[in-house]
Amino acid sequence: MLALDEARARILGALSPTPAETVALPEAWGRVLARPVLARLTQPPADVSAMDGYALRAAEARPGARLRVIGAAPAGRPFGTALGPGEAVRIFTGGVVPDGADAILIQEDAEEAGGLVTPREAPAQGRWIRRRGLDFAAGDTLLPEGRRLSARDIGLAAAANHPWLTVRRRPRIGILATGDEIALPGEPIPAGGIVSSNAHALAAMVRAAGAEPINLPIAPDDRDAIAAAAAAAHAADMLVTTGGASVGEHDLVQAALGPQGFALDFWKIAMRPGKPLIWGRLGRTPVLGLPGNPVSALVCAVQFLLPAIWVLSGLPPAAPPTQPVRAGAPLPANDRRFDHLRASLGTDRDSRFVATPFPVQDSSMMATLARAEALILRPPFAPALAEGAEVEAILLDRLGV
Amino acid sequence: MLALDEARARILGALSPTPAETVALPEAWGRVLARPVLARLTQPPADVSAMDGYALRAAEARPGARLRVIGAAPAGRPFGTALGPGEAVRIFTGGVVPDGADAILIQEDAEEAGGLVTPREAPAQGRWIRRRGLDFAAGDTLLPEGRRLSARDIGLAAAANHPWLTVRRRPRIGILATGDEIALPGEPIPAGGIVSSNAHALAAMVRAAGAEPINLPIAPDDRDAIAAAAAAAHAADMLVTTGGASVGEHDLVQAALGPQGFALDFWKIAMRPGKPLIWGRLGRTPVLGLPGNPVSALVCAVQFLLPAIWVLSGLPPAAPPTQPVRAGAPLPANDRRFDHLRASLGTDRDSRFVATPFPVQDSSMMATLARAEALILRPPFAPALAEGAEVEAILLDRLGV
Repeated sequence: MLALDEARARILGALSPTPAETVALPEAWGRVLARPVLARLTQPPADVSAMDGYALRAAEARPGARLRVIGAAPAGRPFGTALGPGEAVRIFTGGVVPDGADAILIQEDAEEAGGLVTPREAPAQGRWIRRRGLDFAAGDTLLPEGRRLSARDIGLAAAANHPWLTVRRRPRIGILATGDEIALPGEPIPAGGIVSSNAHALAAMVRAAGAEPINLPIAPDDRDAIAAAAAAAHAADMLVTTGGASVGEHDLVQAALGPQGFALDFWKIAMRPGKPLIWGRLGRTPVLGLPGNPVSALVCAVQFLLPAIWVLSGLPPAAPPTQPVRAGAPLPANDRRFDHLRASLGTDRDSRFVATPFPVQDSSMMATLARAEALILRPPFAPALAEGAEVEAILLDRLGV
Repeated sequence: MLALDEARARILGALSPTPAETVALPEAWGRVLARPVLARLTQPPADVSAMDGYALRAAEARPGARLRVIGAAPAGRPFGTALGPGEAVRIFTGGVVPDGADAILIQEDAEEAGGLVTPREAPAQGRWIRRRGLDFAAGDTLLPEGRRLSARDIGLAAAANHPWLTVRRRPRIGILATGDEIALPGEPIPAGGIVSSNAHALAAMVRAAGAEPINLPIAPDDRDAIAAAAAAAHAADMLVTTGGASVGEHDLVQAALGPQGFALDFWKIAMRPGKPLIWGRLGRTPVLGLPGNPVSALVCAVQFLLPAIWVLSGLPPAAPPTQPVRAGAPLPANDRRFDHLRASLGTDRDSRFVATPFPVQDSSMMATLARAEALILRPPFAPALAEGAEVEAILLDRLGV
């Protein structure tokens, strides 16, 4: 059996980022930069005021002095003339500091009457002036290649005068559910059958990770049907199958794909739930075969599919982020399989997360899975832990999963 | 000056969720349920096998016994006949347990030859059988009204046979940037002007929160233009303005909207950055006026706009989630304003978050803001803290901000 980390490393090592595309700035949120964003201008473009008040010479702004207000410099409308002796200019936040001025008297410290302004407090030289280039200078690298763009980054790219950004194309993930026994929601259900849930949960996960799902028609347990459906996935950056990955004789995904020149591996991974996994390549398309049990499929998707989408999106290889939590119940010692306990999440008196595993961990239970807010991680041979001990957990809501 | 929490409570108290709409299941990820999801069927619909193996009577399955294999029960194809004495049925995960069988012998514990199966280990009665309704029963409330749908929830709703879900309409948020000095990225920049960044950052935040931004044309600093643009926002569930909320004479948003029968409040909030805020109603549309400074606008949007979108989306009123972190530098005592220190985020040797405030906290600095991963929260009159002390912080990446 393969260790979980080793399986993930082999999957991620086989993947490359999607090609670049150019998108309009508002479409770039959450996307990963394929080229760095350089400042196209200097910000602020000149020395500007940080406050509403009066631009003047600090040396002349003694309390009680009377300075002549010769004009105004609102943001966007610079006052064109230099200040002479004894003069001041009304200025507003973002307004360009006129030549000759070296400080801003904030309006709370000023009295204006009859075209004259009188300081109540003397401003220090340079006070309340934002220097040209304080934020950034033309040519500065503001956002590096490989960065996933936050809302703040979008604002920064806008401020740096970029109407377009070059990002990685959203990975297209083909999703293929297999099995005679499954039907789409709302469609006739075969005798003894169930409604397909994995493909929909996986499609939502793919969206949550910023990729684009392609939901392929359900393939019955028949070699030709599976192979035909898989062929339809050639346009995808990755094909994900669900079902057909266990060792039973009805598990045909492997058998159907293998003989057609597809390089497929079958792995048993030392993890619970979800040990059987198919991994390989269909032409140039990577194929990830997940188990059919809903919980197994989800846990494998969190551990392998999400990181795979991140790499396809242009992000570095990484495991899903974890959070230290306190165990809400004693945890038994673990065997050789990396375990993922479905758990509810609360907080203790010190506002620390407490994750409490559900008593039944059956891998067919969707309702329990939906209630689970965390997966408590139990590495191979982890020792027994008392209630309250610290363990690592994956918080599912944080991943949109 | 109004306290931050009080301002947020007044804003959230004035908002109601958007009306419901029906969407196809795959569109429902991240949306908030307007009606609960009830199970339309029982899952599993019959007793099914949890493993690949043989369905048989536990009492007959002594090690060394030879049972006749009379057929197979794959998932989706129930074996129609009841088991007689000395008989077994080949069964696969999810296959219906035939009448007469009361245990599953897993295939790892079985030897089959010549149509006969021999147990190597005796299974206990009921072993490896998932009982009818183990996951859920028809009529069970699986997902309550008001729940934001995770990928797991989408899977559960599918399993419960729902092709459609009734959710809250995405809130539509009109965004109005004001100011003579601002230009859209890539367009000619007026002398002394800057490129509009707030509207784009806010639009991305609106998307991150699951709502739909409407970017209104930039309004110059002119009463009629502002009022006309604002009127265009009547189709929005909320109008957000940026700029024009400070006390200077060029701050016209308030003046332009006030006389037209709009109920507007002007608040000074005891917070930093971002103290001036406009709040009110334009006809039936709530109006939130944010400061013009990028950092002030963002911090106010995190504290007021995101929670407002959550309430409009059908979620309960709440402050943005915080995380305890260690201070990466000594923090001075705070004054009467609730402060938000822009900080980088790392981890210490115990994998705990360490947030280190940037030395310059100027509210015009977009590049610093983009680098900031956390806002360290300093409530009014918070005492000085040593490096390493625990403080609450808002982690911006977690909000997609």
